[in-house]
Amino acid sequence: MKTRSCLLFAVMALIGWVMPSFAEGVRSQIEAANAKFVELAAQGNAAALAGLYAKEGAVMPAGTEPIRGTEAIAKFWGAALASGVAAVELKTLEVYGRGATATEVGEYALRDKAGKMLDRGKYIVVWKHDASGWKLLRDMFSTNLPPPKG
Amino acid sequence: MKTRSCLLFAVMALIGWVMPSFAEGVRSQIEAANAKFVELAAQGNAAALAGLYAKEGAVMPAGTEPIRGTEAIAKFWGAALASGVAAVELKTLEVYGRGATATEVGEYALRDKAGKMLDRGKYIVVWKHDASGWKLLRDMFSTNLPPPKG
Repeated sequence: MKTRSCLLFAVMALIGWVMPSFAEGVRSQIEAANAKFVELAAQGNAAALAGLYAKEGAVMPAGTEPIRGTEAIAKFWGAALASGVAAVELKTLEVYGRGATATEVGEYALRDKAGKMLDRGKYIVVWKHDASGWKLLRDMFSTNLPPPKG
Repeated sequence: MKTRSCLLFAVMALIGWVMPSFAEGVRSQIEAANAKFVELAAQGNAAALAGLYAKEGAVMPAGTEPIRGTEAIAKFWGAALASGVAAVELKTLEVYGRGATATEVGEYALRDKAGKMLDRGKYIVVWKHDASGWKLLRDMFSTNLPPPKG
């Protein structure tokens, strides 16, 4: 029994040692993926933006069922960019989870060509790690701005 | 080197064995916490609903900054229940993550006293495990219904 307890302790210690440093790495990798997102949005490249999502990825905006899959996501971002969004700002606040997925909580802002803020809000993204790195698996966001008064 | 490789392999195998069964347990624990949520909503008990959130918990609805802390969350749910929400339905679709946090993706519906659907949509909740079980740490949702035509 002593040997088993000792082994279990060694395993738990190893997990405890590996995981936080892993999480730290995940955060900077997610921030790098976000930097790519911001760059592609500034280029107006909706197809490349959609490529940052996992194949089974989904964007989950208000007012519609989740938008699933690369083609539909490219269309969504194409429409957003065509509507006047010229710049996306993303700020990572928190990263949770370990292993093949991680969850990011952050803040966004959208600006037009002149730099005027169109919208700002919060988001939660579930990231999935695959052979080519971290991909957006679930992307949910909502505005912080009150609805326009009718 | 051989001994080290062998130990590493044993550790990885153990992690691989422990984690999925842990994740399965997490899912049913989260579903149980959701059942409690549904029950308290049906009772109109906003204060108890707020107690299902972590102390540092936040609700992240559209049209406002995140609503942080037990008191503000109780007020938010109090207003929702007062506005005619008599029943909340929650359906867990996916659970991601391991360890002290887990991320749930699901669908919700809100009904009035007569059972009429007031709203339906999707949500992402980051859960945090503390001494008293799983608590909602970040709670984000958005309607699937298109905005009313002006």
